[in-house]
Amino acid sequence: MSDTLVTDAADAFPVSARNKIKRMHERGAYDKAAVFAILDAALLCHVSYVIDGQPFCTPTLFWREGETLYWHGSSASRMLKHLKEGTPACLTVSHLDGLVLARSGFHHSVNYRSAMCFGTARFIEDADEKLEALKGVVDRFYPGRTKTLRPIDPQEFKATTVIRMPIDEASAKVRAKTVADDEEDYAAPLWAGVIPVAQVIGAEEPCPRLIPGTTRPDNLSAYREGRRLDETFAEMHQLYQRGTR
Amino acid sequence: MSDTLVTDAADAFPVSARNKIKRMHERGAYDKAAVFAILDAALLCHVSYVIDGQPFCTPTLFWREGETLYWHGSSASRMLKHLKEGTPACLTVSHLDGLVLARSGFHHSVNYRSAMCFGTARFIEDADEKLEALKGVVDRFYPGRTKTLRPIDPQEFKATTVIRMPIDEASAKVRAKTVADDEEDYAAPLWAGVIPVAQVIGAEEPCPRLIPGTTRPDNLSAYREGRRLDETFAEMHQLYQRGTR
Repeated sequence: MSDTLVTDAADAFPVSARNKIKRMHERGAYDKAAVFAILDAALLCHVSYVIDGQPFCTPTLFWREGETLYWHGSSASRMLKHLKEGTPACLTVSHLDGLVLARSGFHHSVNYRSAMCFGTARFIEDADEKLEALKGVVDRFYPGRTKTLRPIDPQEFKATTVIRMPIDEASAKVRAKTVADDEEDYAAPLWAGVIPVAQVIGAEEPCPRLIPGTTRPDNLSAYREGRRLDETFAEMHQLYQRGTR
Repeated sequence: MSDTLVTDAADAFPVSARNKIKRMHERGAYDKAAVFAILDAALLCHVSYVIDGQPFCTPTLFWREGETLYWHGSSASRMLKHLKEGTPACLTVSHLDGLVLARSGFHHSVNYRSAMCFGTARFIEDADEKLEALKGVVDRFYPGRTKTLRPIDPQEFKATTVIRMPIDEASAKVRAKTVADDEEDYAAPLWAGVIPVAQVIGAEEPCPRLIPGTTRPDNLSAYREGRRLDETFAEMHQLYQRGTR
């Protein structure tokens, strides 16, 4: 999608040199709905930040509330210590959807959905805001679950750091189609096509120390064996948003 | 694994402030076999690099030859333009293996395997080396496939940039176990356990313009519906290594 199509500022992130899609721009979009759909279908992101000129790429759980991204970690973490003052960060989510086998090496590709979000990442210092955020990391994936758990204790609260990053700029990139070969290559008697890939939920493995007779609560029923994980996370996000508004 | 267990320098990456695992170090390892197993089970990585102080986190295909990582992209790419001189980079691979639901918010977690690799990323300028690498990106995933394809043409060769990064330091982190709750919480009548997750191969979607009668060649038979993608990639890597030695 060309960025000239994006005319409503409320629905799209601003475009700068930082998030402007330079390669394959027909695959890119800046509208918030496109970015959020990719983010909300995921639990895992990769966050980039810089310490003394050295880039780090850290995998972590994250969640979204409106136009703000959250992630958390141990207060002892190397990465998080450097975020107290606020530091530029880039949070990226990618879904691999298929392997694209073409009739030339050059046109081999993958189907994917990715979103890159730029902003300034900072500790949450306010205790109430931090407590709310710590409920979010559980309830966003398992809506209503924190109500069933004991409260977080002071030691746990202290040991955990929560980071918030309002999204200043973002972009989405998607490839979702079959092989695109050069016209003259279609005559080659080669197998070409897409091998789809999906993250799928497996059979539950209950804790061996469950109190006998304890079954999975209804609010976890969406996590059923064989289902796509991205669809499940997206559904959970919608349930969570409805519950918190 | 404690790093004191790593005694043979040939089998382990050096440990510095950059790759030292600060959090949950019992989950970490520096031995090459652990790092390579995580890398070789993947196609997608996230690469972090810095442009004018701004970190970028870019999802991309990558592959490994010995202790060197390769990735490629358009010569017009913003990221790749900055790698001509050589730039510090961090390439990370993560596999999400399960959702861990505990009896307290604090002990909710995920099962995962991740590897972070540090080094200096640079363009490949030598034409022969670049040509070999461009075969690698296809043959590493689909061993023997480039022999069946037309050669890369000069325009394609020019339009593609290949990056190489020898791994200077690396670390692996793995969580692969059931719930670990606080002892006093096991008495709670709550469902707790692991919901496994895996990337799985779907049913092939042949290109609609296949020459009639064209079937998938035997060397793609490993990509069969329902199989785990990580296991398939690991098998393909072994086949590829055997073929190129």
